[in-house]
Amino acid sequence: MVYGDVGVEVVREGDWVLLYIDERRIFLFRVKRGKRFESDKGVIAHDDIVGVRFGSKVTLSTGTTAYVLKPLFYDFFLKYKRLTQVIYPKDLGYIVFLSGIGSGSRVLEAGVGTGFLTTTLANIVKPHGKVYAYEIRREFYEAAKKNLELSGLIDYVDLRLGDVAQAQGELSNLDAVFLDLPDPWKYVELTHSVLKPSKPLIVFIPTVNQVEKTVIALRNHGGFIDIHAYELMLREYQVKEGATRPKSYMIGHTGYIVFARKVCRE
Amino acid sequence: MVYGDVGVEVVREGDWVLLYIDERRIFLFRVKRGKRFESDKGVIAHDDIVGVRFGSKVTLSTGTTAYVLKPLFYDFFLKYKRLTQVIYPKDLGYIVFLSGIGSGSRVLEAGVGTGFLTTTLANIVKPHGKVYAYEIRREFYEAAKKNLELSGLIDYVDLRLGDVAQAQGELSNLDAVFLDLPDPWKYVELTHSVLKPSKPLIVFIPTVNQVEKTVIALRNHGGFIDIHAYELMLREYQVKEGATRPKSYMIGHTGYIVFARKVCRE
Amino acid sequence: MVYGDVGVEVVREGDWVLLYIDERRIFLFRVKRGKRFESDKGVIAHDDIVGVRFGSKVTLSTGTTAYVLKPLFYDFFLKYKRLTQVIYPKDLGYIVFLSGIGSGSRVLEAGVGTGFLTTTLANIVKPHGKVYAYEIRREFYEAAKKNLELSGLIDYVDLRLGDVAQAQGELSNLDAVFLDLPDPWKYVELTHSVLKPSKPLIVFIPTVNQVEKTVIALRNHGGFIDIHAYELMLREYQVKEGATRPKSYMIGHTGYIVFARKVCRE
Amino acid sequence: MVYGDVGVEVVREGDWVLLYIDERRIFLFRVKRGKRFESDKGVIAHDDIVGVRFGSKVTLSTGTTAYVLKPLFYDFFLKYKRLTQVIYPKDLGYIVFLSGIGSGSRVLEAGVGTGFLTTTLANIVKPHGKVYAYEIRREFYEAAKKNLELSGLIDYVDLRLGDVAQAQGELSNLDAVFLDLPDPWKYVELTHSVLKPSKPLIVFIPTVNQVEKTVIALRNHGGFIDIHAYELMLREYQVKEGATRPKSYMIGHTGYIVFARKVCRE
Repeated sequence: MVYGDVGVEVVREGDWVLLYIDERRIFLFRVKRGKRFESDKGVIAHDDIVGVRFGSKVTLSTGTTAYVLKPLFYDFFLKYKRLTQVIYPKDLGYIVFLSGIGSGSRVLEAGVGTGFLTTTLANIVKPHGKVYAYEIRREFYEAAKKNLELSGLIDYVDLRLGDVAQAQGELSNLDAVFLDLPDPWKYVELTHSVLKPSKPLIVFIPTVNQVEKTVIALRNHGGFIDIHAYELMLREYQVKEGATRPKSYMIGHTGYIVFARKVCRE
Repeated sequence: MVYGDVGVEVVREGDWVLLYIDERRIFLFRVKRGKRFESDKGVIAHDDIVGVRFGSKVTLSTGTTAYVLKPLFYDFFLKYKRLTQVIYPKDLGYIVFLSGIGSGSRVLEAGVGTGFLTTTLANIVKPHGKVYAYEIRREFYEAAKKNLELSGLIDYVDLRLGDVAQAQGELSNLDAVFLDLPDPWKYVELTHSVLKPSKPLIVFIPTVNQVEKTVIALRNHGGFIDIHAYELMLREYQVKEGATRPKSYMIGHTGYIVFARKVCRE
Repeated sequence: MVYGDVGVEVVREGDWVLLYIDERRIFLFRVKRGKRFESDKGVIAHDDIVGVRFGSKVTLSTGTTAYVLKPLFYDFFLKYKRLTQVIYPKDLGYIVFLSGIGSGSRVLEAGVGTGFLTTTLANIVKPHGKVYAYEIRREFYEAAKKNLELSGLIDYVDLRLGDVAQAQGELSNLDAVFLDLPDPWKYVELTHSVLKPSKPLIVFIPTVNQVEKTVIALRNHGGFIDIHAYELMLREYQVKEGATRPKSYMIGHTGYIVFARKVCRE
Repeated sequence: MVYGDVGVEVVREGDWVLLYIDERRIFLFRVKRGKRFESDKGVIAHDDIVGVRFGSKVTLSTGTTAYVLKPLFYDFFLKYKRLTQVIYPKDLGYIVFLSGIGSGSRVLEAGVGTGFLTTTLANIVKPHGKVYAYEIRREFYEAAKKNLELSGLIDYVDLRLGDVAQAQGELSNLDAVFLDLPDPWKYVELTHSVLKPSKPLIVFIPTVNQVEKTVIALRNHGGFIDIHAYELMLREYQVKEGATRPKSYMIGHTGYIVFARKVCRE
């Protein structure tokens, strides 16, 4: 069925769609007339998707049902080129919450990597805020640039190739700083210089040793208070009527989150 | 020291400030000339805070150092009147992430309670989005209203006293629905009718039995896919050089999060 | 090197040995002259193991080092034929602790399955105690019998094919009862009749629904107090100097443990 | 009601009893004619307990029901004088399991502290095994001695005041070594010298830094393989029909467990 009513969103050529077949078969692609989607559960011509209302059921060649969804911002992660370890949703959500940012915030991120956090931040600060994002390795910078273009959020990101140390003197009065670097303790003074007083620094790091070094560097610096180190564990449940239980496997560890607020030292 | 420079935010009468003395002594209050802040660690006249730059050190009567901070949106939770169980930061962050919302989103929340989630959502959808928030118990509605006024985010909330069932027919094409009700399975059809196709429902519930009933109701309804049930555990670390370990006590349970995306049933 | 001294245990033909090559290559086998151990890391003739002191280094055909160990009782689990879900070490340890048993205890186990718990219990109650163990499915009973023979602990087990209901009237004054059955609530009265007053029942079950039904059945029965339901999570750490962290994956769920003590009802 | 039948255990003067009133009121005491048990829920004369069958219901002065139980070995922990942090049941169970010990085992424990582990080990190795237990601080040694006497398991413990280094040369061919010391890495060579080849060392330590130092010391020593570091988390559930959930608070951390097996170095 094809809808054209006001308020009803239909798939147009060039749109990204999330095709949901089942829990293990979720695909993101851009609709292009003449192309074909193929899977082990059947195929469908893109032409059969154009004009369909988002959220609709479609039928693959095998008779299998699939759903054509408009992707949420994080569904684009499925297509992101990954050159590094990524930050997981459980951590992304808590990092954003702790930062206290919202629409219009201006923030610094160092260590863009694959860009999961950059994308998440851009989605929050848009349309008038900005994510100043540094990545020192050219290969990662290039990949992150493409990833952010794909998600449609690159306009809210000022993506920079180079060491975040360059932000010194250039950026100031920021609403939050996010560090996803192997040696965040080296950037404590930089962070202090670019943050607006009262505003938070959030650090994401994989090992306990890095947590210890970062927290101690923040304490010794003297320009940070309310310092905390956290870890989140996520369990998913397998729900069956009368037989509900956590899933057998879970992610045992992703990383630790360190939080602190900037104060004036004088 | 008093600052008046452009770009430097100083405390003015009527401002909310977060006074940080130490990890266990963090206070939120509104500055009013002639008043006095009092604690077991010393006192300070509000007059001595007016004109101070946010982030500055001040000295209490006992010589103890404190810091005057500009509160983040969630610092206002400290002053929220609590008549109900609240949703904790670890869950708030993940709930917002999963919803995929951002600035400009229009969302429905049912079961406002103390208003922690309402506040968090308002901070994300502002300035052009809206949180349509229902609370059926007048006492809770009144408390939530005052809480939201206090945080300064009430302009982005359409707070309604009454059953969320009233949203039927009135609201539509929403970007997300959030249910924090004891019987979310009764609102599956309502949720379906107000959500934009592709968009998510997020449910927060304290018991496993509610998870089971909610997930089964969503499956049976037929208008939801990608259904997941999650639980987050947060541990805080106690960092000492050479002696770092998780804190001895932690919150063992707050609630479960159920996620699903709306699809069209026809 | 060959040892024959008093107090030094050397490998003899017919002994079980645990051959440790590296973390992922640990093998249990019975030494037999003329046979050969083979792995992707090299081979070794059993004849080259006979006469070696337990704990010794040996060299495989490729030059790789391996260690010849005397197995602990649970190392035999490696060779156990598994027809069912097993109970994991983290749960086995806690189950035994809670039961309060020791050498000489007489206990009942229902639902032998693969026999991990039976073996663990036999190792504790030996040499003068006894594990009365019921398994209703012949195939599992046969497998468990072979498993227990292999571990050398079968002498402390009275392994019975059939429904544990048969224990009624026959067994009494037991020091503990262990149920690993899908419907433990059906065996509450039986458990009560065979336990010595004051002594504990321990139930192992995979779903939350079973926990609820079991605990409620125990409460309603009236002959049990101090009823608790537990869950254990185990994380393993990956230790590197300056880069220590939990392993990325962990078991998210095995099962729940319910505990109660028998009291007299009259 | 008073029982005197064969096979029925009745309370005699001098017996320890566990009086269970409710989940928060569980008391351990020794029955003595003429004494009175007192609580906020009522009192009962010890004379009214003598002659009662273990497991029986008794009635306190207020009409409240209580149960007279024969204590399990770990119920004596309730009365142990605590001068140190203790090892919790979840860890005790796993430590014993990993050690592979049973009746007759001869083991070394260093750092007795309050004696929870010593008691647990004694209960397993009895009647012909032995726990050689060192405590260097006289005050702790004296308290542990009284604690162990109280539990009735002291006959299976050779409790020694002094540094465990004294075990060198004196003990050998042990079935397991348990270290609960702040600096276990200093005792790696000692452990190696007293353990039977193939047998395990188990270390309990509270901080991540200690885990790292211990594991690295074991690796560097060369006489240990199969080295693992673990952490256990225990959650208790609150069961209500239709409203089951984990309890709100849990222990977030007790300590880490390191495991290794001794091999010969030559």
